[in-house]
Amino acid sequence: MSVRIWCNHPIAEQDRRRLSELGSDALFVEKLEDADVAFGQPKPEQCLQCASLRWVHLSSAGWDKFERPDVRAHFAKGVALTNSSGVYREPCAQHVLGLLLAEARQLGRSFAHQATDHAWPKLETRAACRLLAPGVTVALVGYGSIAGRVAELLAPFGVEVVGVRRAPNGREPVQMLPFSQLAGALARADHVVNILPGGAPTERAFGADQFAAIKPGAVFYNIGRGSTVDQPALVEALLRSQLRAAYLDVTDPEPLPPDHPLWRVPGCFITPHSAGGHANEDERLIAHFAANLRRYLIGEALLDRVF
Amino acid sequence: MSVRIWCNHPIAEQDRRRLSELGSDALFVEKLEDADVAFGQPKPEQCLQCASLRWVHLSSAGWDKFERPDVRAHFAKGVALTNSSGVYREPCAQHVLGLLLAEARQLGRSFAHQATDHAWPKLETRAACRLLAPGVTVALVGYGSIAGRVAELLAPFGVEVVGVRRAPNGREPVQMLPFSQLAGALARADHVVNILPGGAPTERAFGADQFAAIKPGAVFYNIGRGSTVDQPALVEALLRSQLRAAYLDVTDPEPLPPDHPLWRVPGCFITPHSAGGHANEDERLIAHFAANLRRYLIGEALLDRVF
Repeated sequence: MSVRIWCNHPIAEQDRRRLSELGSDALFVEKLEDADVAFGQPKPEQCLQCASLRWVHLSSAGWDKFERPDVRAHFAKGVALTNSSGVYREPCAQHVLGLLLAEARQLGRSFAHQATDHAWPKLETRAACRLLAPGVTVALVGYGSIAGRVAELLAPFGVEVVGVRRAPNGREPVQMLPFSQLAGALARADHVVNILPGGAPTERAFGADQFAAIKPGAVFYNIGRGSTVDQPALVEALLRSQLRAAYLDVTDPEPLPPDHPLWRVPGCFITPHSAGGHANEDERLIAHFAANLRRYLIGEALLDRVF
Repeated sequence: MSVRIWCNHPIAEQDRRRLSELGSDALFVEKLEDADVAFGQPKPEQCLQCASLRWVHLSSAGWDKFERPDVRAHFAKGVALTNSSGVYREPCAQHVLGLLLAEARQLGRSFAHQATDHAWPKLETRAACRLLAPGVTVALVGYGSIAGRVAELLAPFGVEVVGVRRAPNGREPVQMLPFSQLAGALARADHVVNILPGGAPTERAFGADQFAAIKPGAVFYNIGRGSTVDQPALVEALLRSQLRAAYLDVTDPEPLPPDHPLWRVPGCFITPHSAGGHANEDERLIAHFAANLRRYLIGEALLDRVF
């Protein structure tokens, strides 16, 4: 099958050659206008102008910029959007469990002491630790591929997992609530994990009302997008101890400015948008696109289809 | 059954009363010499002088001070030693997984930046992250109750787990090696978790030879006892990058003096002997002793018997 590929993801010559060899007549083209397939981060508005484009494969898990009514309408006429969530599912899920355990074991407190005063507050640290165990509820808000994997990693702990998504499909392996019942999930959960995608529909989904609805003393995590959180409301919730702690891998803006209050508010722990990262990330991104390109060439359903 | 209990674990009056009510004639006595049962941390040499003593239940998972030939010989004549490993198994195993994921997700690096310069080294942090996934080997050295639980928590990750213990019993659910083959395990593992108990038999079990046998670039963890590690050799192994990192919950001495090189050697991350701690630790310690006391009173086999 003939296929013309546009690519702005940095890619080695040998990978380019290997990808070309997947189709009998596959070649890379310079202009998006000439392409059937785009891999990387094309501009959504430019995609709207490209008559031959049939498939966009994003090199990210997020598709914020494509979450627009005009893009959805255009793509509905025969363009597929896929993302790289297959690449980021595992590292993101491990990041979530890592943050849950960092809180349970108070690692942020200990590593901060090591970076500053070399104190050894054994008894206070031990008393502040909490078990992830039966009786503890974890809410996964934005229940997609990553959340499903978090639920698998949490299984041996025996915690109760409740998922929240726009439209539960009945096939999720955990208890699900529709987004309209978010407040109910927030009132029950000891740990609230925000994995919402970015874009207009989720903007400031966590604001003063949601933080007020959270069970007092619960812990908030965000590995979705900074845009989904009203940060002044989050700072407030931490200052008045509505939240015991917050773990943020994403902020608004990024990088978070050095003088931003989130760096210093007690109980807030920050990682620099590192949730999806891993040493062989690029290799896995290209392998994931190659697997999807093979499917495209033989007309099979694409992996990680967004719309 | 009549039983006289000596206790130096701090215990509320109501807990004391509840424990007394477990036996028809159970009472607390002031002197170890008058006791059948000891709960807390009695002195081993004093136990040797107590003719009526039949059972010592330690309020710790460690039994370092009792690991002596004279104590073993005396206890072999009819005194049971039990520990509180049932209480510490879960928090210790969660601490181990927390440290493995802190390394995988580079949390120590991020939390240190937050505590100091508010930097946002996104790309470097992402590139330094590693997945806990098939192809990765975790060695659990000192395969007892805690290690068994670590293996359960690791199951969803698909890593290979190899256990090392003095005498494998053939019933462990993972591949086991005897302690005589430690070097073989060290050469294979990407993560070496030291959960050895303290005492003379394990003193400096990890020295220059063992660190030299570790696969270059592996990560070392210690949640057992500081006495099992030759710390200058560990610092050396970190300085020459034989080890990628080390995570220590126990050191020698404790607290680790503020000017000790382990605080500052690159790649070393320290928690203040917090692995077993949790908010309701004391409540669980007393419940665990109560469960064992019930067994003692009806002649059932004791839980967490050491010897």
